[in-house]
Amino acid sequence: MDFLNEMNKIGELAVLAARQAAIMTDQKKNRCLEAIADQLEMDRKKIADANIIDLKNGKKNRLNGAMLDRLELTNDRLSSVIQSLHDITDLSDPAGKVDREFTLQNGLKVRKVRVPIGVIGIIYESRPNVTVDAAALCLKAGNAVVLRGGSESANSNLALARSMTAGLRRANVNDKTIQILPWTDREAVSVMVKMNDHIDLIIPRGGEGLIRFVAENATVPVIKHYKGVCHIYVDQIVNADMALAIIENAKCQRPGVCNAVETVLIHEAVADHFATAMAQRLRASDVELRGDPGFLDLVKDAVPATEDDWHEEYLDKILSVKIVPDIGAAIDHIATYGSGHSDAIVSDDETACDRFLREVDSAAVYVNASTRFTDGGQFGMGAEIGISTDRIHARGPMGLEELTTYKYVVLGTGQIRE
Amino acid sequence: MDFLNEMNKIGELAVLAARQAAIMTDQKKNRCLEAIADQLEMDRKKIADANIIDLKNGKKNRLNGAMLDRLELTNDRLSSVIQSLHDITDLSDPAGKVDREFTLQNGLKVRKVRVPIGVIGIIYESRPNVTVDAAALCLKAGNAVVLRGGSESANSNLALARSMTAGLRRANVNDKTIQILPWTDREAVSVMVKMNDHIDLIIPRGGEGLIRFVAENATVPVIKHYKGVCHIYVDQIVNADMALAIIENAKCQRPGVCNAVETVLIHEAVADHFATAMAQRLRASDVELRGDPGFLDLVKDAVPATEDDWHEEYLDKILSVKIVPDIGAAIDHIATYGSGHSDAIVSDDETACDRFLREVDSAAVYVNASTRFTDGGQFGMGAEIGISTDRIHARGPMGLEELTTYKYVVLGTGQIRE
Repeated sequence: MDFLNEMNKIGELAVLAARQAAIMTDQKKNRCLEAIADQLEMDRKKIADANIIDLKNGKKNRLNGAMLDRLELTNDRLSSVIQSLHDITDLSDPAGKVDREFTLQNGLKVRKVRVPIGVIGIIYESRPNVTVDAAALCLKAGNAVVLRGGSESANSNLALARSMTAGLRRANVNDKTIQILPWTDREAVSVMVKMNDHIDLIIPRGGEGLIRFVAENATVPVIKHYKGVCHIYVDQIVNADMALAIIENAKCQRPGVCNAVETVLIHEAVADHFATAMAQRLRASDVELRGDPGFLDLVKDAVPATEDDWHEEYLDKILSVKIVPDIGAAIDHIATYGSGHSDAIVSDDETACDRFLREVDSAAVYVNASTRFTDGGQFGMGAEIGISTDRIHARGPMGLEELTTYKYVVLGTGQIRE
Repeated sequence: MDFLNEMNKIGELAVLAARQAAIMTDQKKNRCLEAIADQLEMDRKKIADANIIDLKNGKKNRLNGAMLDRLELTNDRLSSVIQSLHDITDLSDPAGKVDREFTLQNGLKVRKVRVPIGVIGIIYESRPNVTVDAAALCLKAGNAVVLRGGSESANSNLALARSMTAGLRRANVNDKTIQILPWTDREAVSVMVKMNDHIDLIIPRGGEGLIRFVAENATVPVIKHYKGVCHIYVDQIVNADMALAIIENAKCQRPGVCNAVETVLIHEAVADHFATAMAQRLRASDVELRGDPGFLDLVKDAVPATEDDWHEEYLDKILSVKIVPDIGAAIDHIATYGSGHSDAIVSDDETACDRFLREVDSAAVYVNASTRFTDGGQFGMGAEIGISTDRIHARGPMGLEELTTYKYVVLGTGQIRE
């Protein structure tokens, strides 16, 4: 079949490009990124024209306002895409970094050295800026990339990819280092996620449906997160003002993202006062509150929460609230309903904080800070290609340490995100 | 269906046990391991009796000598299983180790801390000693484990697992921390590898068929290696004696293991002398040689190698040999036919060594040493649960570094394995 042959060819070209990218110097990779930035600058008009077609199609297909907004590549947004290429150029090259070095008794010197992953497949939905951001990050780390964008942004993605490959050619680099699939249907995804021989890693970015589809069909390793059901637990010994500011920030500063809070758990010892103060504060920001019976006793006009609410990533100005008898019950709730993304305790009791940090097993666990900080840019990584809630990481001999993963522990004094 | 319900129940109990194991102190984990060692000591007779049944069944089912040997749990082998429990007790606990620590401009202190993976599923074939080794390593790292052994060793595995759970109870620890499936058929594997909600990681150990079956059916992340097609490249500026000693060691010291060499690549500048010297040396150890036309010109009575030979993991005293025009051709051959496990260069030319280390992308890359050192025990990890040729490792926000993996670079001066 023609389509399968073409996919196979794309895979083979990517493998070859990845071998070349893996041995590029940092200077060479930076020259590529700058050449891509220049080319995007020159192609502003073409890219804008392509984006207009996508927006027209989007309106015809009755996409909602939020989706049309994500699709739109204004002049300013393209400027910030170009700026991010310069920013990525400035990051230090991780390839070749020595993680660990040791000498065996027989005199063998062993180094654990960071190397590119190889060919990375990115499967994403409507945001066209992902096309450039993801490709640039993959390239700077020495990888080749195969992109498969959504149908809504097909014209914009193709225009951006064309500029990027022109940039690669200007830098005298294999222009197959960045490839975009011309197919935007699910069948292309089905084939792509089984290309073991050509793709080393798939990163899906999009809704839970897309991610589950990828995870269930992939034979290539997948790095993913399904959803962010993030919790804030308000402990019995607590600075209530700090807790209110953190909750308001984590819910309202940008409700539609994965590190926004969805459920607040309140220790019953402080519930009387705190529940009403929180209700007042959040209602001023138009947040709908859904509570368990304990919360409804205190805030009469809240909506009763159902079992489904505890599992829900609202991505909206809705918050579920539960009154818990102690920190153990809060930790149990998070273990049962959490998604392993980001969870926080607000407390002035060091013992409680230590217990929370130790027993809550999420990718990021916070003390006295907003969950909104779980973000590559905020963590000083310079950029972010996604957030993983996966738990594995091993290559080579696996001893004891390879049977562990890691999490981020974040200690704050009330930090909220601007 | 009863079977699915039972699998589900096993998964739920494992998740609970994993939460408890994750917060056990090192002392407590060590007490468990010592209690298990004591219990195995007391149960020697029961275990031997169970092993005799497996051996009888094996003979009845006409297993070959090598398989029966792997199945046998002699008194000495059980002693070394028990000894390995004491050795694992002595390893330092990786959980809680801080990988990295940094402070953000807003004052947030971020720590990247090692934590247990959770529930680990081990799917293995005939060796009953894996039952104890794998369970003990998982436990020491703070994980719960679900074991699924092969049908040949079913009685031995069950007896060992029963002793281990009795040991856990003696140490007052949840005895579901170590569970073994009573089903040894492929259907049990099919269900197990899709238990996303209960299992965090699957490690299959066995032949390529088993591993492919797991990789193709799993929705749970899998750490695997399919096979070890390891190469040694003999460069043009070379200490021939060292090269011969390394090749002999890598092929003959234990031919049936994954880090044994399968293909030798010889630079044409040294081929005249080296090929005949190598043929003489390896024939003294009964190694069959299969060569490309270049090698056959020099060693007339070698067997012609087919395309299949370059892909083959012989696990036997057979070696394929190719004469290459330069180091680039050697690296290309390894990129095309290698399995990303372990590859070595023997050379006195620093530039060639550097290029080989940089361009050969395998889990372990060697200069002037035998490939047989790719082993957790040899690397000083104290123990090994397997070798991974996977390339991913990320949890939490993924920036640039999370788009790299690592490899081991090993620098030697002729080391061979005793």
